[in-house]
Amino acid sequence: MDRDCVLGTHRVLEPAGALPQSAWRLDNTPVARSNEVLCSVDVLNIDSASFTQIAAHCGGDADAIAAHIRATVDARGKQHNAVTGSGGMFVGQIAAVGAARADRDTLVPGERIASLVSLTLTPLRLDEILAVDIATHRVRVRGSAVLFASSIFARLPADIATDVALSVLDVAGAPAQVRRLAAPGQTVCVIGADGKSGVLACAQAKTRVGPAGRVVGIVPNGDSPGAQLLLAEGYVDRLVVADARDTLAVLAAIPAALPALADLVVNCVNVGGTELASILCARDEGTVYFFSMATSFTAAALGAEGVGKDVTMIVGNGYAKGHADIALQTLRDRPPLLAYFNARYGARP
Amino acid sequence: MDRDCVLGTHRVLEPAGALPQSAWRLDNTPVARSNEVLCSVDVLNIDSASFTQIAAHCGGDADAIAAHIRATVDARGKQHNAVTGSGGMFVGQIAAVGAARADRDTLVPGERIASLVSLTLTPLRLDEILAVDIATHRVRVRGSAVLFASSIFARLPADIATDVALSVLDVAGAPAQVRRLAAPGQTVCVIGADGKSGVLACAQAKTRVGPAGRVVGIVPNGDSPGAQLLLAEGYVDRLVVADARDTLAVLAAIPAALPALADLVVNCVNVGGTELASILCARDEGTVYFFSMATSFTAAALGAEGVGKDVTMIVGNGYAKGHADIALQTLRDRPPLLAYFNARYGARP
Repeated sequence: MDRDCVLGTHRVLEPAGALPQSAWRLDNTPVARSNEVLCSVDVLNIDSASFTQIAAHCGGDADAIAAHIRATVDARGKQHNAVTGSGGMFVGQIAAVGAARADRDTLVPGERIASLVSLTLTPLRLDEILAVDIATHRVRVRGSAVLFASSIFARLPADIATDVALSVLDVAGAPAQVRRLAAPGQTVCVIGADGKSGVLACAQAKTRVGPAGRVVGIVPNGDSPGAQLLLAEGYVDRLVVADARDTLAVLAAIPAALPALADLVVNCVNVGGTELASILCARDEGTVYFFSMATSFTAAALGAEGVGKDVTMIVGNGYAKGHADIALQTLRDRPPLLAYFNARYGARP
Repeated sequence: MDRDCVLGTHRVLEPAGALPQSAWRLDNTPVARSNEVLCSVDVLNIDSASFTQIAAHCGGDADAIAAHIRATVDARGKQHNAVTGSGGMFVGQIAAVGAARADRDTLVPGERIASLVSLTLTPLRLDEILAVDIATHRVRVRGSAVLFASSIFARLPADIATDVALSVLDVAGAPAQVRRLAAPGQTVCVIGADGKSGVLACAQAKTRVGPAGRVVGIVPNGDSPGAQLLLAEGYVDRLVVADARDTLAVLAAIPAALPALADLVVNCVNVGGTELASILCARDEGTVYFFSMATSFTAAALGAEGVGKDVTMIVGNGYAKGHADIALQTLRDRPPLLAYFNARYGARP
């Protein structure tokens, strides 16, 4: 059976030779080609940088924002903000499944899913824009989108509120990778432990290292709701209050908090300049996992060389097999964590 | 016994609280404190970006360049170019060893060494500048420098020309990491295979994977001396001529060159925009090792997510235990490779 390009290059209209993300215009014809999945779309979650730019451009007017998004999608066949270069994700239902897909038998039309690849590479057609929610950056629509063979997505669970599920899926790579990298008896240090990805990473780490292991969280402020949750539920054995950008402050805290250093350091901070502190917290031949998108490649590479530290430094891949299920299960298995996410990220009245 | 800070913060004069690299001025007193090594210095290898800036500023005049370097070191206690932010390395001899160093018994005064940490964090004192070689960016001096407990250095071999040894030590992390990451029977793909780090990576990879394994090199030009060496000596099983920035060209070459994809992809390219091609060459759950300093962290992280590829992506750490010895031995064990390096990087008449 003939297969289309797994990366979706067969949907590129212009310029020729581009990949879907770098393309100006995609073919958004609402059919499921050989190894595609066609979805009906209910909601666009415009990414924060893009929505803020569009809203400012439109003077904060919901109708103008809707018209702006409509014009972009009509012109380009995808919601790709040309100013910010970013997109977002969609929520919808499986409508049709290409005949050549290996996972064809597992894909049930009508199932609710969230796309986990960017809207900047997703063929999208809008029939109608129903509402723009300026507070949440969500746009209710009637439309259709296409997933390629390489486009990851997650089934939305029936037992977790959609807003909460989306907030967890956004950082699903963190708990999944911690589960893979941490081992019983180890010491794990999570930097930026009280943020969204940080609390999920700590909870998974504590389960993985077990009673013989140790989880140390580094947070900028011990009074934050996230920090209090970590201590109250025992997701960390110790909390260190320090600004991870202050390398000497972290260094000063190490003898008491991490006397033998950490086997695994997980960086979940969303600011730059924390690479060296992360490296210094790891033991010789330990692993540093940089989940933060604010990580500088050269600061990490030259930082380790500058202090002569033989550590394995891993780039936080947003995808790992089963990451969506692992992230959602991290909440289901821990009612206090689920309650925390419901309170913080659930739909507001 | 009292130990000084392994990172050398005890040598920071101003501003207080800085690390040696971020400091404006270091204490360059020529003594070996508890866990330091004092070295006499013969040669400064000024890094290319810094030397080019200084030479332009001084109108290409050797005496003016010497005076400029002298003024920097006198003012700051280190050769730290304030414009480029970069330094270089030094070649010298061990002069005195601190009493608290664990490796004290292995450090013999008089041994010739090259520092492998940046001059931007190395306390340096200059007694005299003897000559400035504008062609090689090398400055012959009489002076002294201090290595901290965390400062890596390499013993210079007696059997390999100093210029050749320095050129190999500059990329020592690549062959050392390939030796660690590759395993018998595997398929390894080296992108940028014909460059300095690339040929060393291919040679180590071929030895590690053995006759049952395969090494595929991707090069921009099959006629380059490096590409010809790889083929002639069998350091690769197959050479693919493609521009790694052209993702679709690499994708098109994969079915014939890497039908089952690579267990390990080593990126040695010194240009940006090759992250996605590297990721696409790796098999599911394979490893991508980014040795290139031109790597974009976000392009790697979002690239893997965008194509739903579960690969482990490693930041090229310039340091790995024994990396200098492994890199030099890579030449000793392969006379054609040594001849190639002698011809290309050896001292010119």
